[in-house]
Amino acid sequence: MRFKITGSGSYVPKLTKVNDDFLDSEFYDNNGSSFENSNSEIIDKFVSITGIQERKYASEKLNSSDLATKAANDAINDSKIDPETLDYIIFAHNFGDISYNSKQVDNLPALATKVKRNLNIKNPKCIGYDILFGCPGWIEGVIQAKSFIQSNMANKCLIIGSETLSRVTDLNDRDAMIYADGAGAVVLEGNNSESGGILSHSSASYTSEGENEFIYYGIGNKTDTDNNSNSDKFLKMNGRKVYEFALKNVPIAMKDCFDKSKQNISSLKKIFIHQANQKMDEAIINRFYKLYKTTPPDDVLPMNIQEYGNSSVATIPTLFDIVRKGNYKGHKISKGDVIMFASVGAGMNVNAITYQV
Amino acid sequence: MRFKITGSGSYVPKLTKVNDDFLDSEFYDNNGSSFENSNSEIIDKFVSITGIQERKYASEKLNSSDLATKAANDAINDSKIDPETLDYIIFAHNFGDISYNSKQVDNLPALATKVKRNLNIKNPKCIGYDILFGCPGWIEGVIQAKSFIQSNMANKCLIIGSETLSRVTDLNDRDAMIYADGAGAVVLEGNNSESGGILSHSSASYTSEGENEFIYYGIGNKTDTDNNSNSDKFLKMNGRKVYEFALKNVPIAMKDCFDKSKQNISSLKKIFIHQANQKMDEAIINRFYKLYKTTPPDDVLPMNIQEYGNSSVATIPTLFDIVRKGNYKGHKISKGDVIMFASVGAGMNVNAITYQV
Repeated sequence: MRFKITGSGSYVPKLTKVNDDFLDSEFYDNNGSSFENSNSEIIDKFVSITGIQERKYASEKLNSSDLATKAANDAINDSKIDPETLDYIIFAHNFGDISYNSKQVDNLPALATKVKRNLNIKNPKCIGYDILFGCPGWIEGVIQAKSFIQSNMANKCLIIGSETLSRVTDLNDRDAMIYADGAGAVVLEGNNSESGGILSHSSASYTSEGENEFIYYGIGNKTDTDNNSNSDKFLKMNGRKVYEFALKNVPIAMKDCFDKSKQNISSLKKIFIHQANQKMDEAIINRFYKLYKTTPPDDVLPMNIQEYGNSSVATIPTLFDIVRKGNYKGHKISKGDVIMFASVGAGMNVNAITYQV
Repeated sequence: MRFKITGSGSYVPKLTKVNDDFLDSEFYDNNGSSFENSNSEIIDKFVSITGIQERKYASEKLNSSDLATKAANDAINDSKIDPETLDYIIFAHNFGDISYNSKQVDNLPALATKVKRNLNIKNPKCIGYDILFGCPGWIEGVIQAKSFIQSNMANKCLIIGSETLSRVTDLNDRDAMIYADGAGAVVLEGNNSESGGILSHSSASYTSEGENEFIYYGIGNKTDTDNNSNSDKFLKMNGRKVYEFALKNVPIAMKDCFDKSKQNISSLKKIFIHQANQKMDEAIINRFYKLYKTTPPDDVLPMNIQEYGNSSVATIPTLFDIVRKGNYKGHKISKGDVIMFASVGAGMNVNAITYQV
């Protein structure tokens, strides 16, 4: 049995926020102290590390499940399947639906069932559930879909990653500039006639050395507010810890995965890595290739974080869809190409898939 | 390959809230109007429908992931496995961690990874993720664990259901009396030597006829508050719609599941059904047996909703653990017994498992 991606889709929100939009932001460190540097200097340093020039925000009326519906519809159309034949809708996210200007997460009912309703799928045997697994949730959803197909519980699965991080950012934290909104999706099908598909996968959860606190929900950096917003929580990151963790563990997970595929490293055409930070991603890829005593090919790492920011679970399926459907900045993939997906995020969790197009 | 439950555990919170504790509550309907009947009359009617006399609330310092840790520890000890050999920690919930007196859900990192940390499991190959699937989430987690074992991705899985509904109830809604806190867990293992285990399972998601709005996150019933709590959202239920839906669809899902097990209805010893409402559960079971042109045996339906209330994903694994480990109100299960799990909840989702002890 092969496990093939037969369709992909994405939705990139329309609102663009450029770095200069943060020139008037009040930034504080996590002790509530302001910075000596000007915002202009802060932004320059931010760009040099993350590569992010602009990011996309969902319009006020759209929630995460709405972005997801658009990406899902796109993927279903691309796969040419009858949506009524879907066995699973697997929706990876971390925050769920959060209405604009609300701080309350709304996960009831699960977002997958909202998408199913929006797609007007009637078949009750199409099961929708949400998975929470940090940024690697979309990859983990694909791995779960493969398991369902392999154990004869499914043949066609839709796997969505969607997030509206703009709704959970602390505007007084420089990290606010990292986060973005977006949605991507693929259809994975069991297939006995074609070659390729998922060749191998690997996952890991690290929790025994304080990793639960590397990416977390925490209070805002501005402490002297006179309203009650002090108790509001936001997406928070210990950037240094995340960087060190990712550099140590992601290359290992990728090698564990790639070795299981029995492919030669020279045949690896593209790596779709979770776009958290351009410099971090490049360092991870360098270290991954170093494990094979070689260096990465120039064109192995497509990235759109510069324009799109970090949209959590959505970065990989969104970029994959854009590259798959066209020639994005010179990047393209063709039938037979061996590619990888790899991610790291809250948990801390890491995972990877080797896939042959 | 057999899929056997080798351990179970539960944690029932210590705080008991009796029905008389609601005598001074300000109840309104969902239009903001008060009721003509006294609270005493409201409570009497409530008991006659739901059977609930008292319910358990988590103490202020404990969150859902803390209750889950206690239940998980109990299940691991019961199974006698080394926790480092667990391949998956699957955590079913709908609201995640909500600190006492907070309205903000905290699902970052996913609760499964918090439990893994609390259990001090170091093995990175033990993968923790959360599943959102309404009240049937715990059963769905067991079904997913079976798939992982069947597809050689796992051999030992811990599946937890934990919820603190007391933190998301609208105190101005009579339904506040329904909701409770609790946690239950089982260890599911692949086994080639024993008989029995999971014989069959069935799941369904219904979304095309407004079912997304039967159980949802909505604003409180008291509309004339002078603070900003009007925008706060709570767990809300359209009781009549849920009742009608459950009576129509759960017996069908149960029959679909039980028929796949190839067992005779007369061999079914116990049904562990999600305890949402005693009268509804009894009506579902009556209708299920009616599909086999018979009536339910007197002792087929263990229930503890009278004392414990409705704790969402936790009702089934909690009651199962209590019955499995002792003789609860005359209910006991023995090796070889055929039993069922069945649930219904937000989505709307339904599912069932036939299991041989």
